[in-house]
Amino acid sequence: MFQRPSGVITLLTDFGVADPYVAILKGAVLCRAPQAVLVDVTHAVPPQDVAAGAFVAWTLIERFPAGTVHVVVVDPGVGTDRRLLAVLAHGACWLGPDNGVLGAVMATTTEREVRALDMEHLGLRPKSRTFHGRDVLAPVAGWLANGRYGFGALGPRVDDPVGVVDPCAGPPRVLHVDGYGNLVTNVRAADCGPAATLAIGGRVLPRRGTYGEAAPGELLVCTGSYGLLEIAIRDGSAAGVLKVGRNTPVGVVLA
Amino acid sequence: MFQRPSGVITLLTDFGVADPYVAILKGAVLCRAPQAVLVDVTHAVPPQDVAAGAFVAWTLIERFPAGTVHVVVVDPGVGTDRRLLAVLAHGACWLGPDNGVLGAVMATTTEREVRALDMEHLGLRPKSRTFHGRDVLAPVAGWLANGRYGFGALGPRVDDPVGVVDPCAGPPRVLHVDGYGNLVTNVRAADCGPAATLAIGGRVLPRRGTYGEAAPGELLVCTGSYGLLEIAIRDGSAAGVLKVGRNTPVGVVLA
Amino acid sequence: MFQRPSGVITLLTDFGVADPYVAILKGAVLCRAPQAVLVDVTHAVPPQDVAAGAFVAWTLIERFPAGTVHVVVVDPGVGTDRRLLAVLAHGACWLGPDNGVLGAVMATTTEREVRALDMEHLGLRPKSRTFHGRDVLAPVAGWLANGRYGFGALGPRVDDPVGVVDPCAGPPRVLHVDGYGNLVTNVRAADCGPAATLAIGGRVLPRRGTYGEAAPGELLVCTGSYGLLEIAIRDGSAAGVLKVGRNTPVGVVLA
Repeated sequence: MFQRPSGVITLLTDFGVADPYVAILKGAVLCRAPQAVLVDVTHAVPPQDVAAGAFVAWTLIERFPAGTVHVVVVDPGVGTDRRLLAVLAHGACWLGPDNGVLGAVMATTTEREVRALDMEHLGLRPKSRTFHGRDVLAPVAGWLANGRYGFGALGPRVDDPVGVVDPCAGPPRVLHVDGYGNLVTNVRAADCGPAATLAIGGRVLPRRGTYGEAAPGELLVCTGSYGLLEIAIRDGSAAGVLKVGRNTPVGVVLA
Repeated sequence: MFQRPSGVITLLTDFGVADPYVAILKGAVLCRAPQAVLVDVTHAVPPQDVAAGAFVAWTLIERFPAGTVHVVVVDPGVGTDRRLLAVLAHGACWLGPDNGVLGAVMATTTEREVRALDMEHLGLRPKSRTFHGRDVLAPVAGWLANGRYGFGALGPRVDDPVGVVDPCAGPPRVLHVDGYGNLVTNVRAADCGPAATLAIGGRVLPRRGTYGEAAPGELLVCTGSYGLLEIAIRDGSAAGVLKVGRNTPVGVVLA
Repeated sequence: MFQRPSGVITLLTDFGVADPYVAILKGAVLCRAPQAVLVDVTHAVPPQDVAAGAFVAWTLIERFPAGTVHVVVVDPGVGTDRRLLAVLAHGACWLGPDNGVLGAVMATTTEREVRALDMEHLGLRPKSRTFHGRDVLAPVAGWLANGRYGFGALGPRVDDPVGVVDPCAGPPRVLHVDGYGNLVTNVRAADCGPAATLAIGGRVLPRRGTYGEAAPGELLVCTGSYGLLEIAIRDGSAAGVLKVGRNTPVGVVLA
């Protein structure tokens, strides 16, 4: 349960950092919860890329103190009649639009509770139709963090949230390309044993324990930071060398 | 009045985030005010673009707790004899060089008080001529936030600050292109009625309530997050499609 | 000595800001030290560029409250048998891999103490071999910040840290190109007098007090924010105009 807020609020958006939108979100939180600890997750989700946002939200599971509020704003439908959700899962509260951006988090557990924010009940009258992050989600995050509202008070239960999809489901493929050019796949290392490896473009790559166990310039497969197999190259960008990106198929080669 | 500091200090600069300059500013604040809450606005103001900085500062008005200190550093004249100002306006204190970067904030209200920082009186001897953000503005921000100095103690009143210009003044035009490619204009939605719209490049665009009310790929006009009319495209970049940028003229079409 | 932690923890990495890695580091700190004040230095160190990271770490010396913990993660050898170090120097604790990234900080003082983190003693069993920032350095930083461990408890003394190199040593050259395009050299202004200047590409540049003392478009030399001579151009990018970068030789011209 979300009984004791940690006071930590994370922010995950597609706002970029050239505009003041993120700061304005933070101002809206701090007006309600001056003691909140605000953590930027990333604001570089590609604009309106709900699936990319859903993956990043998933990487936060159990990485923050119990009672953390995660605000996830990738919201092409802002201001339309799409719902805004609060999800209680993994000891944290996740706030975001009902468009699938919280779907990967929801898919990881059946011990979850989902509610739709009841703006009228919460006394919220959005001043804009284009910035519900500022006008709705940030105030609610602040109130959760300072204990003004508990999770159960946020609105009615929802039984049919949109896009509850395990990011690791489906055929083996590249799920995400990180900033180093590492290809993070949807293959869980724990599911396929310590000697399993991957093939990409018809080429079977050696499994290593870490990047530095490969020769310079050698492509390798290792267990990455998310517990997923990833394709990397020592001291370089695997994505650049292989010229592949998200959704490229990979093959799993069991030992 | 700036009677009770909120403890929040925002930082708005053209420093970029590849260098440690922003962190060094924060260190200079934290050495004086360890409890300060630091919020990055953006550090991606184009280098030395005072007008762009002035617009972003304007977007912060009344978005933070009363008693917040806003530090604005876009300062091509650093180390010359230009003054450094403190402006009391909208319940906040704004610190920055006297080059117009605080001009848009000042232009929004006559209930303001402007002072020039008296470095000698404040006991400040800048160690460099190239980083007054670190050597002057950050210490003053820390002292305001922790209550060591009140606003009135910062230095003598100034009657002739530079560049006090309403960012919405002048002919209708694009004021800012945001990270989504939305064209934020200087036309206040409240000034022209809910059915008014805009023309650009000879083309009259439909007015919508929000982005999602347009068809995919359709250009539209809506009231954006700042209360200004903006030109957007559903699921895309209007700036990219129209190939226009800041200062492009627009026409206001009243209903 | 690192007797009283300030509660401030800075983070300097090559992680970039598009991935959630930095946020995950912060979560790992906040799980141990909910009151920690986290400051991003930069996460734009070029991937695996240990020398660039070492220079940025050096710029932080004495810029933060005594008792600050600086976490520096540029770690191409993550998960191999390279040691992880804690360095007590300049009143702060510096954590990072033993690959030279802390070498510039170490080179500035003989009054330092260096220890290797003893993971077993600290009760740390890294969950991955690719993310020791999250699994080791962030927990240790949190424990130092909240006083659970003092510096002396972190592990055995190290007498042979890797890469202890003064960044200003060696022939005069460009050490760093900053976000404005200023060329920061390794020439200490204090070492060569107020009238000394630099030559680059056979051209002797005028020494100025600050950028604004040059004519628009004029190349100049001034004392930059780090106390090093730098080559700049008024209202522009010296790196762009001169088409030079890191390690370009410069000449020192004494007055």
